[in-house]
Amino acid sequence: MVKSDIEIAQSTEMLPIEEIAQKLSIDKEDLDHYGKYKAKVDFSALHNKETNNGKLILVTAINPTPAGEGKTTTSVGLGDALQKIGKKSAIALREPSLGPVFGVKGGAAGGGFAQVIPMEDINLHFTGDIHAIGAANNLVSAMIDNHIYHGNELDIDPRRITWRRAMDMNDRQLRSIVSGIGARTNGMPREGGFDITVASEIMAVLCLSHSLDEMKEKLSDCLIGYTFNNEPVKLGDLNAQGAVAALLKDALKPNLVQTLEHTPVFIHGGPFANIAHGCNSLLATKMALAHADYVVTEAGFGADLGAEKFIDIKCRIGDVKPDAVVIVATIRALKMHGGVKKTDLAEENTEALKAGLPNLLKHIENIQTTFNLPAVVAINAFPGDTQEELDVLKEAIEATGSKVVQSNVWAEGGAGGVELAEEVVKLCEQDSEMTFAYELGDTIETKVDKIVQSVYGGKGTEWSVAAKRTARRLTKLGYSDLPICMAKTQYSLSDDAKALGRPTDFEVNIRDLSVSAGAGFIVVLTGNIMRMPGLPKVPSAEQVDVNAEGKITGLF
Amino acid sequence: MVKSDIEIAQSTEMLPIEEIAQKLSIDKEDLDHYGKYKAKVDFSALHNKETNNGKLILVTAINPTPAGEGKTTTSVGLGDALQKIGKKSAIALREPSLGPVFGVKGGAAGGGFAQVIPMEDINLHFTGDIHAIGAANNLVSAMIDNHIYHGNELDIDPRRITWRRAMDMNDRQLRSIVSGIGARTNGMPREGGFDITVASEIMAVLCLSHSLDEMKEKLSDCLIGYTFNNEPVKLGDLNAQGAVAALLKDALKPNLVQTLEHTPVFIHGGPFANIAHGCNSLLATKMALAHADYVVTEAGFGADLGAEKFIDIKCRIGDVKPDAVVIVATIRALKMHGGVKKTDLAEENTEALKAGLPNLLKHIENIQTTFNLPAVVAINAFPGDTQEELDVLKEAIEATGSKVVQSNVWAEGGAGGVELAEEVVKLCEQDSEMTFAYELGDTIETKVDKIVQSVYGGKGTEWSVAAKRTARRLTKLGYSDLPICMAKTQYSLSDDAKALGRPTDFEVNIRDLSVSAGAGFIVVLTGNIMRMPGLPKVPSAEQVDVNAEGKITGLF
Repeated sequence: MVKSDIEIAQSTEMLPIEEIAQKLSIDKEDLDHYGKYKAKVDFSALHNKETNNGKLILVTAINPTPAGEGKTTTSVGLGDALQKIGKKSAIALREPSLGPVFGVKGGAAGGGFAQVIPMEDINLHFTGDIHAIGAANNLVSAMIDNHIYHGNELDIDPRRITWRRAMDMNDRQLRSIVSGIGARTNGMPREGGFDITVASEIMAVLCLSHSLDEMKEKLSDCLIGYTFNNEPVKLGDLNAQGAVAALLKDALKPNLVQTLEHTPVFIHGGPFANIAHGCNSLLATKMALAHADYVVTEAGFGADLGAEKFIDIKCRIGDVKPDAVVIVATIRALKMHGGVKKTDLAEENTEALKAGLPNLLKHIENIQTTFNLPAVVAINAFPGDTQEELDVLKEAIEATGSKVVQSNVWAEGGAGGVELAEEVVKLCEQDSEMTFAYELGDTIETKVDKIVQSVYGGKGTEWSVAAKRTARRLTKLGYSDLPICMAKTQYSLSDDAKALGRPTDFEVNIRDLSVSAGAGFIVVLTGNIMRMPGLPKVPSAEQVDVNAEGKITGLF
Repeated sequence: MVKSDIEIAQSTEMLPIEEIAQKLSIDKEDLDHYGKYKAKVDFSALHNKETNNGKLILVTAINPTPAGEGKTTTSVGLGDALQKIGKKSAIALREPSLGPVFGVKGGAAGGGFAQVIPMEDINLHFTGDIHAIGAANNLVSAMIDNHIYHGNELDIDPRRITWRRAMDMNDRQLRSIVSGIGARTNGMPREGGFDITVASEIMAVLCLSHSLDEMKEKLSDCLIGYTFNNEPVKLGDLNAQGAVAALLKDALKPNLVQTLEHTPVFIHGGPFANIAHGCNSLLATKMALAHADYVVTEAGFGADLGAEKFIDIKCRIGDVKPDAVVIVATIRALKMHGGVKKTDLAEENTEALKAGLPNLLKHIENIQTTFNLPAVVAINAFPGDTQEELDVLKEAIEATGSKVVQSNVWAEGGAGGVELAEEVVKLCEQDSEMTFAYELGDTIETKVDKIVQSVYGGKGTEWSVAAKRTARRLTKLGYSDLPICMAKTQYSLSDDAKALGRPTDFEVNIRDLSVSAGAGFIVVLTGNIMRMPGLPKVPSAEQVDVNAEGKITGLF
């Protein structure tokens, strides 16, 4: 019988976390333990010590399909493989949110023999970062409504509060609410709602901050709404930044854990890939680079969204740069891009594979041409893949001048990723001069147009009246120099989730914009973006259990 | 200049938490570290090891006034004093909630030189217990609404869902909301609201559970609402108990910290003293008793509420019993009970003191007569107290045959509590046969009457139509054998917050009842009980700050 992820994870003996830290020459005194196998690493390990300058490997993927790509699994396996070939490697990943864990997705710490452990802890409360972010977000909300209740000196318009409450739960019931009802003493009636905590701007701020002090500045800049006179109101106007930063003082420290093969992993920060930049914290990336020679990290969704934001937002703000990019694809997923239904994926189908390939080729083109970075395609092996399909795929990729390697880390762990690791090491030796998709000095409209044309391969953009108006207002308020954070369906290169493969000749509809003034980007909304998921009819929570000894089952 | 609490706390060198554990002969391997100075103690330290059977000292107080009584400060100082006179002592306290910390109250870990540290951590996220309880509570809510959304097989009446959402924040805006609005896909519109997390039944369940397994049973029994046919719906009907218990598996483990004088302190569980039993977890009390010779613990509010619930609920469910009771009073507070305004407290006023004394005398009577326990009064010294006032007070107390001792732990730490400690040790040598205020087999009405007459000193009770109806329904549902949890104003022995001193001849109005079927008690509501506080005009959050090194200021 094949073991489940949680069974594999629970049958692995973990090393004490100080031994994992030792692999990266991180001192014991820089660790704050959370149990025996998790620790926060103090900022002193970054600032006060002699440090390294490792190579950064970004793992991205084709547009996701229900067939699965295995981006996190590949990232974890690649980190293990680098360790296996003798490199001082580390991995930097996002923290999972509780909502999806209890919904359909199960855990989010890799799979098979390429996992991060202790997976139950990582998937449940971990070191409390997301709870701290939720509390920080909701303290701001309470202070906003409390300010209005006690006389509203700042003249905040209750109809134009943009700061929403947060909950780390898939709870559609809270998307849209009326609060403050029932009695004068219950506040001021107004419409509002909850986003899932990882969609909070606080999360994005935490992930893009270099230090506690700088985080406090960013927090002060967060826009929370407008006055009756249309003036912006900021978090700093409420004097909330000190208390919010105090709530986040430990959450800002990167968390250290390990893979099944005891490779060090920083799991820290998990901004929603839709309305934020969708990758782990800058401090985790920097901490890893300061202590390892090779750092594997991943971006959210496909390369059109995740890698673009990684480069245009995170690399800009954080002054980091990938030395190599791994683009993960599966034959199954490419067949779906070629029109095959999920139920028919078991059959060999080279025609569908060829039809789906242009999706992958566009992502390769983006990484190599638009962003000018060395890339390798990792084919994440599935049991049903045939040799014929593999050959077709390899030939097509190699015809573009790109490298392609099969990866089998789900079944074999690091051993299944050695070839990929060796290729990545070679790529990291190349010199590369990263380019961006747009200039910060471009107008908002030009930036969006450039992303759509060069990264998505579309014709251009179609702006709603609201979007045009917001663009004018944000420009007037001085926000036009910020980078762009596209909120677009992850399933297609276009804004139409059903347009798989490589759509052409399309326009992207720009519905509206909003500014994350603290985090430092403008969110461009194309279509309806869900900031609070719901649970399925039978949520995976119903399967989760814990026995008398505290052993958890039913996470997967 | 007098140092603030946080300055005293931050200037104290802490001992590594394993050294604190060593004082109680708790093995290193039974600790899960949360940083260097906090740890969770594993259940194995309770169940699998050779253990002790310490004496339990309950600290309670007169009815609280704005003048302050210093119950927690006295508890901490008494624990230190017991250590000082050579006893193996430990303290068991409640966890503070974030809401009050950012409101008016500031921290909740004692004061002056009788504090628990690290106070910033304890007052902010601590080890994440309250966050875990919030997540557990809100997972249940999400599963209830999700069940209704996906067809409502259980036939839950959305108008009669008794399970409310929770947030660890003082946020009046969320007391009463309409959720599920805006679109069919946003759920089913219904009224509801949020309680502060510590008021969640999950908190009460956690605090009254003996083990993970038993907690899961209690969780399954929690009533979440009624069907359209008036049948009760339980948490177990949603299959939520496994996931909820998984979320609580670490939260159930007691937390170990230390006082300024390095006395071991278990801080664990903080059920709302109003609608729950208001004292720390049973497991923390048992863990402390298993490892120390003298355990100091406190109950919420005054002895009429806190001590009564401690004895009638916690002692019954947990099979524990206080060996001695300390009743804390201040001359200032008694003067307020005697009619003096807060602004006039600095003046000597023996007449007012005498007028306020009956409040204290009634609490002494309750402990010694109703509950038949040995008691000592601790007069918590304040700088303005005069010798004349002290003499009046001592004489009046000694006339009742009770012991009275002055305590000066706020200013002197354990050294200021040595006399109290010695008196407590003497009391613990006495044999005592604790009695309860009522029998479990009494009817609901009789139980409430007995509490009002024997503990509050009232004439009887006046039941609303709703309360009578609910009492009948709960009896029919088989809940009448549960103990009673009174929800009454803490400021008076009666249900009228303004009736200070020792009111007589009053009736208590019973507004309604509800059952905490999982925690195992019937809540009796007298008057409007606030389950979600609000923030004041200038919340203390505005003063809280953190510097670049992570040092927090503005908590007090």
